[in-house]
Amino acid sequence: MKIKYPLFGAVFAMSASVALAKEPVVVNQAITEKEVLAAQQAWCNALININATYEKDGKAAAKALAEKVIDSAYAYQMGVVLFKPTLTVNPQTFRTTRAGALAYFVGGDTAFPKDTGFALKGWKKCEPVNTALFLDGNSAISMGKVHFVDKNGKATTVDKTWGYIKDDAGNLRINLHHSSLEYQGS
Amino acid sequence: MKIKYPLFGAVFAMSASVALAKEPVVVNQAITEKEVLAAQQAWCNALININATYEKDGKAAAKALAEKVIDSAYAYQMGVVLFKPTLTVNPQTFRTTRAGALAYFVGGDTAFPKDTGFALKGWKKCEPVNTALFLDGNSAISMGKVHFVDKNGKATTVDKTWGYIKDDAGNLRINLHHSSLEYQGS
Amino acid sequence: MKIKYPLFGAVFAMSASVALAKEPVVVNQAITEKEVLAAQQAWCNALININATYEKDGKAAAKALAEKVIDSAYAYQMGVVLFKPTLTVNPQTFRTTRAGALAYFVGGDTAFPKDTGFALKGWKKCEPVNTALFLDGNSAISMGKVHFVDKNGKATTVDKTWGYIKDDAGNLRINLHHSSLEYQGS
Amino acid sequence: MKIKYPLFGAVFAMSASVALAKEPVVVNQAITEKEVLAAQQAWCNALININATYEKDGKAAAKALAEKVIDSAYAYQMGVVLFKPTLTVNPQTFRTTRAGALAYFVGGDTAFPKDTGFALKGWKKCEPVNTALFLDGNSAISMGKVHFVDKNGKATTVDKTWGYIKDDAGNLRINLHHSSLEYQGS
Repeated sequence: MKIKYPLFGAVFAMSASVALAKEPVVVNQAITEKEVLAAQQAWCNALININATYEKDGKAAAKALAEKVIDSAYAYQMGVVLFKPTLTVNPQTFRTTRAGALAYFVGGDTAFPKDTGFALKGWKKCEPVNTALFLDGNSAISMGKVHFVDKNGKATTVDKTWGYIKDDAGNLRINLHHSSLEYQGS
Repeated sequence: MKIKYPLFGAVFAMSASVALAKEPVVVNQAITEKEVLAAQQAWCNALININATYEKDGKAAAKALAEKVIDSAYAYQMGVVLFKPTLTVNPQTFRTTRAGALAYFVGGDTAFPKDTGFALKGWKKCEPVNTALFLDGNSAISMGKVHFVDKNGKATTVDKTWGYIKDDAGNLRINLHHSSLEYQGS
Repeated sequence: MKIKYPLFGAVFAMSASVALAKEPVVVNQAITEKEVLAAQQAWCNALININATYEKDGKAAAKALAEKVIDSAYAYQMGVVLFKPTLTVNPQTFRTTRAGALAYFVGGDTAFPKDTGFALKGWKKCEPVNTALFLDGNSAISMGKVHFVDKNGKATTVDKTWGYIKDDAGNLRINLHHSSLEYQGS
Repeated sequence: MKIKYPLFGAVFAMSASVALAKEPVVVNQAITEKEVLAAQQAWCNALININATYEKDGKAAAKALAEKVIDSAYAYQMGVVLFKPTLTVNPQTFRTTRAGALAYFVGGDTAFPKDTGFALKGWKKCEPVNTALFLDGNSAISMGKVHFVDKNGKATTVDKTWGYIKDDAGNLRINLHHSSLEYQGS
């Protein structure tokens, strides 16, 4: 073991080090609760904005905005998103591609003939209410209710699971989205 | 830079090292597709076994087996499981506790009065059919259909999302489970 | 889309939900800076305690404590620890097994004949000074200096990398430890 | 519970599903042993190429290549790399910035006056020999020896730890690099 310097010097060096140590560079890749809540709110805001754009500027503008939302909020660029929207039916229940997500939100895609455009249904309010979050470091999942109210004052509630990953730019992206109408009992 | 040994020795040392290098110790915490598929099959098998135990040995035996299944296949010991079973209703939609999961599978818990025991409904077949898997290293999620057939030959299909983590013993545990009846159209 | 209740009811339900939403269950597996700093301090404290136990109660007691420290602070139960101690030499540079770590800290193992017991060298002070931390969700790494002072007032500084994982009980464990004397220039 | 179709139909549907199930979309973010070994070899090749470029085309060309290597093989764009090179001295032991890494590899930066350019030292062979790998899903660490041989046939061995993360494009990047000369005994 090499001896570097006598005690006095060591103490001096340590004091300087301690001062330095107050500010190590810290990179933190973990997803926080705050980030999840913000991403949920952003999803709700985007839904309402797509509808507002549709009402004000028409379908083409709504579609353009929906594409922007999908490209920034979902993780299709990773290769797949596990997306089970609320209102899809067989054999196109799952929308693992960007095209399938876009068709669900704004309709008008002959490849998805049963889609009428979920985001165009007059939504005015959208509120996520979480039951639980599991923050697993570089991924996170949430489960809870999302309450919607449309322009006629009609309310709808869905059971919602979202999964998130963080991209290289530090933004959360949805890699999982399972939405279902509440079971009404037998 | 310290010189360790002349070229010949280096080459000799490298040869020995290369031989050694063939077998570094490798610990791999990542969840594989094979592990996810096995965990899904184990869940199906457990469901059928709980029902078979119920038919053969009665409810107490079925409950005991269900507890064993929950304790080995789910991650309640982590603090929470994000569990939205197929048939639950408000205000007990989500079963984030072990007690809530047990009540759902075998019923008989006055704290969950609407539960009649999903695992006791005569299931004879259970088949997961995945649409997509996202393996995120130490966590994994799957989405797809699960097809059930009961003792009367009646079939039911649900949309299913499972999330998995790997525990210290190397076993997968379900930390997310969202199940919903298929949307039948408006 | 099913209509659940008219607007007034919806607003009421949402208010109740919002109240509930303030307290979702949150499980957070991510490793924090605070946890890393605490684990580093615990390592230093353990080193000093092993030495103090050696001075007061002898080698057997020091060994017993070292075993306890290794079993609680390192991740050997995961299958391997990537451990390059400061003072080891070929062909036993790396101590990927619990036995190798114990021999390094307290010596006395004929399988590791060059080990004299690093933890028995009279350490009185041990101070980590981090240059950078990378918190990668469920794992974390730190790099910096560790300053030691022994009973004679002699100081030693090493370059230190630690890697941590979080076990099922929520405790950090060292799965990586690379320590090296400072390069003194050519 | 909704009844979908009688048994025969169910069996038919399942057969179709099974066929489909053979090819779920699988996105796998986990780092594999093979990827780590390839990244290590790429690092060695890059070192030798920088030196060869230096010998053939001069220092400016070597520097340009080194920049390219750093930008593609290290993770400085994440905010920090925990990099303790073999031959750095106080107070610039750690090279947490891209500029510090570049200075270490090719020298010529007045901000790092003691750097003479590690990559320009005539390296002709570079061989990693791993003792252990810990693959932690979306991150991975390796520990072992790296054997170098220079143009004069002189060999050098270092103790080496590398940590890797996978970027959005699926490429491994070094976020940890601790290299140290072997301890020679007291």
